[in-house]
Amino acid sequence: MSNLGTLYLIPCPISDETTPWEVLPEGNRAVMNGLDYFIVENLRSARRFLSKAGVERRIEELEFRELNEHTVAGAAVEALIAPLMEGRSAGVISEAGVPGVADPGALVVEAAHRRGIRVVPLVGPSSIILAVMASGLNGQSFAFNGYLPVKPAERQRAIRFYERRAAQERQLQLFIEAPYRNAKLMAELLQTLQPETRLLVAMDLTAPTEWIATRRVADWRKTTLPDLQRRPAIFGIG
Amino acid sequence: MSNLGTLYLIPCPISDETTPWEVLPEGNRAVMNGLDYFIVENLRSARRFLSKAGVERRIEELEFRELNEHTVAGAAVEALIAPLMEGRSAGVISEAGVPGVADPGALVVEAAHRRGIRVVPLVGPSSIILAVMASGLNGQSFAFNGYLPVKPAERQRAIRFYERRAAQERQLQLFIEAPYRNAKLMAELLQTLQPETRLLVAMDLTAPTEWIATRRVADWRKTTLPDLQRRPAIFGIG
Repeated sequence: MSNLGTLYLIPCPISDETTPWEVLPEGNRAVMNGLDYFIVENLRSARRFLSKAGVERRIEELEFRELNEHTVAGAAVEALIAPLMEGRSAGVISEAGVPGVADPGALVVEAAHRRGIRVVPLVGPSSIILAVMASGLNGQSFAFNGYLPVKPAERQRAIRFYERRAAQERQLQLFIEAPYRNAKLMAELLQTLQPETRLLVAMDLTAPTEWIATRRVADWRKTTLPDLQRRPAIFGIG
Repeated sequence: MSNLGTLYLIPCPISDETTPWEVLPEGNRAVMNGLDYFIVENLRSARRFLSKAGVERRIEELEFRELNEHTVAGAAVEALIAPLMEGRSAGVISEAGVPGVADPGALVVEAAHRRGIRVVPLVGPSSIILAVMASGLNGQSFAFNGYLPVKPAERQRAIRFYERRAAQERQLQLFIEAPYRNAKLMAELLQTLQPETRLLVAMDLTAPTEWIATRRVADWRKTTLPDLQRRPAIFGIG
């Protein structure tokens, strides 16, 4: 057991507009400097992140392997953790934010737990938790539901389902959408939800253009909507 | 509108064993140094945190007001945000971790949104998101449910309810317990849950004694349990 590596979960910035050490604690630096093996969602952005963060080793000396939405559980994941079985530690880096949340990172974490490999999550920006904090909605009970369904009928049903659950269980319901569909989603939400339902929109979190508001649907309908298009956003019903 | 203050949500460490700047990004420092008014869950721990963090102003020059579980929505909350209506900014500090999550902070955030006051959440340690990251369970869909009910029958029902929902909706279900009841809760979970259900236990997050494991209930039953008593923990069913 004692000669297994450790799997570190290494957050990176959410927004390209921030420098790494504005949003990451200094304690992460020593961990990052100590690693030469990284399991990453996207090679290019992981290399750029480590380089901007100023890790001590040259990027060319580091080994990178990809774990993304095309990776399936099984042999590919076992191969990723094989070095840890031999005592080498690894860092998991997501495309943006914290690994293991709203990304494929959980596959490798699951395999690590099965093998008794220690998993260490580091602190960093999570748009989900930032959205809960800033929502003013129920932070004692909340759910992140990932992407809304794309097909119109299912999508409508999902919106009504989250509204009902938010009301019945007093549980804030969060979800996301591909940024180019945000404006359409907002129109659908304002059409479908009840006037008294409270709706959170949190955009560009941690960026200079960050914009967050929670309003009753009736009030959203009366205000000029902000530009939502192509800006990463989290929506919440509470 | 333009002469309203801003409401900053200021995380602090989860564990007494870490120094603030190990787990908080440097970007938070300038915000903290710029404030002279703090809305805090606990006066003593907020003062100690700001002092350990080395904020520039003397602690005696800062104004603190409490927002805790005894605060009710209404006049008390309006009084807390009155200074923001006059252009003064405020920082919200929770007992531990990020404000607005699993604490009474949402009350003041809600009031800020109603008045059009800008709300800015800063990055910091959230035991909930760290637990999701490190769980290896579904990070694409998860719910935080707060405390389990205390009464035995309701408690049993809640455990079965979360197990059913985790299975039916493939949604990781997280909950917490008062630390002195952890060992009892663990015994109840191992007795009540199905053998194939996966159970996460994440203790002392960010502390040197951090301990995290996800196992099938059948495997938990076969292993020697770690010491759970009086250690802050998050449990998850996935």
